[in-house]
Amino acid sequence: MRITALAGGVGGARFLRGLMAHLDVVAPQSELTVIANTGDDISLYGLRVCPDIDTLLYTLGGGINEEQGWGRADESTRVQGELAAYGAVPQWFTLGDLDLGTHIVRSQWLAQGQTATEVTARLASRWGLPDRGITLLPMTDTPVETHVVLDEGDEQRAVHFQEWWVRLRAEVPASRFVVAGLDRAAAAPGVLEALRSADVIVLPPSNPVVSIGIILGVPGVRDALRGSRAPVVGVSPLISGRPVRGHADACLSAIGVESSAAAVAGLYADFLDGWLVDPADADVRVRGVETSVHPEALLMTDVDAAARMAESLLALAERVRR
Amino acid sequence: MRITALAGGVGGARFLRGLMAHLDVVAPQSELTVIANTGDDISLYGLRVCPDIDTLLYTLGGGINEEQGWGRADESTRVQGELAAYGAVPQWFTLGDLDLGTHIVRSQWLAQGQTATEVTARLASRWGLPDRGITLLPMTDTPVETHVVLDEGDEQRAVHFQEWWVRLRAEVPASRFVVAGLDRAAAAPGVLEALRSADVIVLPPSNPVVSIGIILGVPGVRDALRGSRAPVVGVSPLISGRPVRGHADACLSAIGVESSAAAVAGLYADFLDGWLVDPADADVRVRGVETSVHPEALLMTDVDAAARMAESLLALAERVRR
Repeated sequence: MRITALAGGVGGARFLRGLMAHLDVVAPQSELTVIANTGDDISLYGLRVCPDIDTLLYTLGGGINEEQGWGRADESTRVQGELAAYGAVPQWFTLGDLDLGTHIVRSQWLAQGQTATEVTARLASRWGLPDRGITLLPMTDTPVETHVVLDEGDEQRAVHFQEWWVRLRAEVPASRFVVAGLDRAAAAPGVLEALRSADVIVLPPSNPVVSIGIILGVPGVRDALRGSRAPVVGVSPLISGRPVRGHADACLSAIGVESSAAAVAGLYADFLDGWLVDPADADVRVRGVETSVHPEALLMTDVDAAARMAESLLALAERVRR
Repeated sequence: MRITALAGGVGGARFLRGLMAHLDVVAPQSELTVIANTGDDISLYGLRVCPDIDTLLYTLGGGINEEQGWGRADESTRVQGELAAYGAVPQWFTLGDLDLGTHIVRSQWLAQGQTATEVTARLASRWGLPDRGITLLPMTDTPVETHVVLDEGDEQRAVHFQEWWVRLRAEVPASRFVVAGLDRAAAAPGVLEALRSADVIVLPPSNPVVSIGIILGVPGVRDALRGSRAPVVGVSPLISGRPVRGHADACLSAIGVESSAAAVAGLYADFLDGWLVDPADADVRVRGVETSVHPEALLMTDVDAAARMAESLLALAERVRR
């Protein structure tokens, strides 16, 4: 089975790890292509950081810090201590020592003229993803950056998405998101092909606005989803209107969409076939979308729980197969 | 007293630390300007590394690894372990985690358009050098790199100085040194002024070919030394023809100069006024240069030993003052 997924960071990575665990049991020859959001990418200290790709690499490759969901296990921050001692800014984004290794080689390879796709493939190779049938693709090779226009009364100010998300903890209301470079970005090699050739397309419970929503903005991606013959199924990132993790509610509010499982499915209504929701959202109905209630809470408390979610989602995909 | 020194890495840094310790006792208001060799500079993993400047920063700033003479005390190599895991090359140059902090901020600031002089001043500020009356200057703001043409029989091959020094341990004979960019380099701001306004100019026991020799190749530096009214005094880096540390003999051999305290003084004969030698070299005579024998071995076993060498050298400077 060929599965193609769109994914952001922590939620997407945890769900896909569960999906792989499930497939290892029921269909070990399956191939997974992950199309990762790169709108979160940021240059820090002159190094190119791709938070969503890194979280996917570390989670799928077995190097993630389980407690925080991002960054490396057994991490330290000796380098960043030095950067602080030199007065280098910003200090609100934590870069661990092991994590920095990734940013340094990525930056070096990019500076040598390799594309984001090529660099990501080299990084993924170290983490053993190809051996497990996983292809990790950045959504585009064009550098794009999500900026957040803050709603501060009369004044409007734009900050990098990471500054809003990490430093401001999404507490300052966003009035809109602007993705610099996205309109002129091309889908990375393999992205549209992976959507067209998939047997199933899955949307993990990633942020619908600043993760999935950004990938959908890459020219050609949404059209490929609309035209797909494969079922497109997704997992709600909200339970009873609240995000399981992160600040999806603040993001939805910025684009004028209600924080609910139904409203998020509505964002995907032009291509979505099936929608997996929490038992608390059993009454959700979305026109043209088959809703399915997961038998337990949509919480990825461990790999097994995520695997059971993936199992439910694939069962739904079979039911809605066109 | 205003003292200006030319310096390479370990030997220069240890001597100048001793000099400062001596001055703290006898002339605490003294000012020291250090003109550092930048021919050793190298880009590794896309980061700009300046080995001599870093050794000067860490030694004069109190952060040096005393045993090895370079790098940081209490160092670790977690980042480089990651770079190796990703297959990044080269691996023959050790970059510690704390040390990497320096390279990252330097690279970032250079990429922002700051000059090497400006960047070095910011780095030196963190290490408290200005507060102690020390100004650390790169010899030039122009990127220059010493390359070594290897003598491998019929074939000639050039490698970066660091590759010859660190990876090959200077065991493959060098046929010559080529300093890319040096002929078109300008002395950094303050370098020629520091030579012209000095009360004493000192040459620490740095490598006469690839450290002091490179600085002397910066347009204007040698002329400033020749024209100086201040005494120019130096410490022999050789004892009985053998380098105290490093591979000065292999470097001298490459330029066809004998490995001896006298021959090294001969390289400086057009501007050198005084030359401090080891008791083992008491019979050294150099035309036009006042030779002085240090009462003990020219070994910088600790700060006090280096301070006594500096005391001898400054006494010699007073004797030869023109």
